[in-house]
Amino acid sequence: MATYRLDIEYVGTDWHGWQIQLNDATIQGSVESALTTALRQKVSVIGSGRTDAGVHAEGQVAHFQLDSEIDELILRANLNGLLPNSIAVTAVSRVADDFHSRYDARWRRYRYKIGTIPFALDAPYRWFLRPEPEISAMNEAAQLLIGKYECSSFCRTASETENRMCEIYEASWFEHDIHPGRLDFVIRADRFLHGMVRTIVGTLIEIGHGKRNPSDILDIRDARDRTQAGSAAPAHGLVLEAVGYG
Amino acid sequence: MATYRLDIEYVGTDWHGWQIQLNDATIQGSVESALTTALRQKVSVIGSGRTDAGVHAEGQVAHFQLDSEIDELILRANLNGLLPNSIAVTAVSRVADDFHSRYDARWRRYRYKIGTIPFALDAPYRWFLRPEPEISAMNEAAQLLIGKYECSSFCRTASETENRMCEIYEASWFEHDIHPGRLDFVIRADRFLHGMVRTIVGTLIEIGHGKRNPSDILDIRDARDRTQAGSAAPAHGLVLEAVGYG
Repeated sequence: MATYRLDIEYVGTDWHGWQIQLNDATIQGSVESALTTALRQKVSVIGSGRTDAGVHAEGQVAHFQLDSEIDELILRANLNGLLPNSIAVTAVSRVADDFHSRYDARWRRYRYKIGTIPFALDAPYRWFLRPEPEISAMNEAAQLLIGKYECSSFCRTASETENRMCEIYEASWFEHDIHPGRLDFVIRADRFLHGMVRTIVGTLIEIGHGKRNPSDILDIRDARDRTQAGSAAPAHGLVLEAVGYG
Repeated sequence: MATYRLDIEYVGTDWHGWQIQLNDATIQGSVESALTTALRQKVSVIGSGRTDAGVHAEGQVAHFQLDSEIDELILRANLNGLLPNSIAVTAVSRVADDFHSRYDARWRRYRYKIGTIPFALDAPYRWFLRPEPEISAMNEAAQLLIGKYECSSFCRTASETENRMCEIYEASWFEHDIHPGRLDFVIRADRFLHGMVRTIVGTLIEIGHGKRNPSDILDIRDARDRTQAGSAAPAHGLVLEAVGYG
């Protein structure tokens, strides 16, 4: 038996998210079907986690198992030949037999991009909103999010996840070097609940717009009640940047 | 009379280039039509130069004249409300009455992006090609392009331009900081002829692939004959980054 890791980049715009679905086109479904064609056998792929419809990835990680060894570079070329332009397998690598993309992941890092000055090239990947939020207030609040606690306030109410403990290691807004009016939010945690990054971003932006105070984030966090947080920022501004292992 | 400068960013993918055409959708045509709607009068726009079908711009500059003054920020918001997502007016500014976006431009800077490791997010803006060209050979040749001379070897034969003298100030390939296998070519000149950047890129890549020697670029340049150069690189990797004035 041989286990292979896939590093996958995708534009989420036209996909119904990562996770395979019966009737809708998903990234996991496309990758499985390309693998099945390339390897002439049914292959199941497990990802490090789901991304919602419209969310992008630069560094999604998945794995699959085979009975025999394959040539990684040839498989990568074959997969990219079969996949649409919006999905790219950036690397195929043989890993330890017991590697598991989801259970072995130590952290996930997401980036959320906003812009307050009109743009076009970045339009599929950045949320245009006005007025410009106050970055210092948003960073003051973001720092208060760091730590380990129950994140129910930032999780979709419909989510069935029982364990809602997450440890947030990093949460900061950055101004863009070259382009004024562009702000990126980077957040890294051991795990994320359904809709969590977008809910945190939406809440921080309300703080940046002066509708709430930075310290309000503590009350929202401690309430463990989704209705206390702000509305979720749109999917297209979000990208899964990297997943960390070992 | 008042003259206004427009800074325009666009995704060229779905457009038949900058210049207005009778039957095809162009960026100039869309901007003129948005201006005409926003200002309720027929407005003509002059750009710093044409970009071909499929070529993008981060910093195209254009200008137009009006009989009376307008509020720049309101006009910018109105134009962006009227334009499709693939075109953004990033700035509207009042300039000297005799400002001319084309005649006053001192230089234009273009960037051409290639990638040799599969990618998805950047797919609309970067040319995927294998194998990776040798950057040192390409830079050796690029340095030989700097100077003022007749650029007929790099100009589409169908072009009707009579004066083919251009002065190239800057021409270099850069490796990407974060992503291996991504190379950007930056070229700055007083002016560019039809198809010139893409022909230069195509020729340099033949050098990077070892099909020609770096010094061959001198013979190609001096031949003043388009058939001596390589084939043009595809449009989607090219972006007009900036136009310099005064």
